[in-house]
Amino acid sequence: MIDEKGILFILSGPSGVGKGTVRKALFERDTELKYSISMTTRPQRNGENEGIDYFYRSKQVFEEMIENNKLLEYAEYVGNYYGTPRDYVEETLNSGKDVFLEIEVQGALQVKENFPEGVFIFLFPPSLEELKNRIISRGTETEDLVTNRLLAAREEIEMMDAYDYVVVNDKIETAVSKVQSIVRSEHLRRERVAKQYKKILEADLG
Amino acid sequence: MIDEKGILFILSGPSGVGKGTVRKALFERDTELKYSISMTTRPQRNGENEGIDYFYRSKQVFEEMIENNKLLEYAEYVGNYYGTPRDYVEETLNSGKDVFLEIEVQGALQVKENFPEGVFIFLFPPSLEELKNRIISRGTETEDLVTNRLLAAREEIEMMDAYDYVVVNDKIETAVSKVQSIVRSEHLRRERVAKQYKKILEADLG
Repeated sequence: MIDEKGILFILSGPSGVGKGTVRKALFERDTELKYSISMTTRPQRNGENEGIDYFYRSKQVFEEMIENNKLLEYAEYVGNYYGTPRDYVEETLNSGKDVFLEIEVQGALQVKENFPEGVFIFLFPPSLEELKNRIISRGTETEDLVTNRLLAAREEIEMMDAYDYVVVNDKIETAVSKVQSIVRSEHLRRERVAKQYKKILEADLG
Repeated sequence: MIDEKGILFILSGPSGVGKGTVRKALFERDTELKYSISMTTRPQRNGENEGIDYFYRSKQVFEEMIENNKLLEYAEYVGNYYGTPRDYVEETLNSGKDVFLEIEVQGALQVKENFPEGVFIFLFPPSLEELKNRIISRGTETEDLVTNRLLAAREEIEMMDAYDYVVVNDKIETAVSKVQSIVRSEHLRRERVAKQYKKILEADLG
């Protein structure tokens, strides 16, 4: 009945929290979601396919895209660029499919700036005690380094404010179910659908 | 881990849309939800219990509660008052339980004014064509009455703007699942939980 656009979902959170594992389990359950395909300047490897594994572009093309704001986010890593092309995301959303992007916190904040209408999900460590223990239990680290890591953790928590949802990754299955609830309920949000209901009603009632 | 307050959910929509049926099916599935108990000035009937079926109060007490803004909404019906007592709702929420309120559109708008932090769900007729057909097919009605009903339907759709979610009641089971997704995902919203995560982190990290 409703001719709806897709929604961009961004799954993010501190490194090591299990973003990739949750994303994989989610895609096994939900085959309707489209995974956002990244663009890169690194050479194509044997067995990889253009438009499936990555979009492969030259450094020059990539930098032009940066200039023209054609990337929702990008970063440089070991001398190569990696980024999320805006056009691919928008075309997929316009075709009515949801796009799912799994990404580090810094990248998510860039996406937030370029695509605020996305739904931002923060994946939280299974327990904060565990986080603390993990930091402290690296016995060889100096006291300064422990302090730095605690500060970094705090900063990451502060970034949570840019997100719409917080999901604790205690058990993968539970976390995936929660993300699925978010995907379903976001499609029911009045801001997204009311205009179309009204349009249909106007057309219907003349 | 998270010591969370409950959430007030309001299920509403045009009369005849099936609010009661959806609510009953939801309560069969989810035994954790608490149904909001109304207050009334009508006499207690045989077999009814105070605090289970209704809170029974005198007209004087009820009117004092209206005066003191102790009701989230109220209405008069066949000479008796019916309303939703704020204290019962707040005590239940403070105990960590969700409260579920099923109510007409006018009542929901009153609740919205008195308790904007509630989550408002608009139940939509199975199809708009059906709505139109229902109105027109009452063959005995004058053309004026049909026009009035179409206008009323339009007004009800306008009221949708006060709601957070829209759920189409096409199949009861589907509608109930959607409401359940909303209940689950609202508990994951960052505004509700971030403060507590931060508090725990501060305590943990010292």
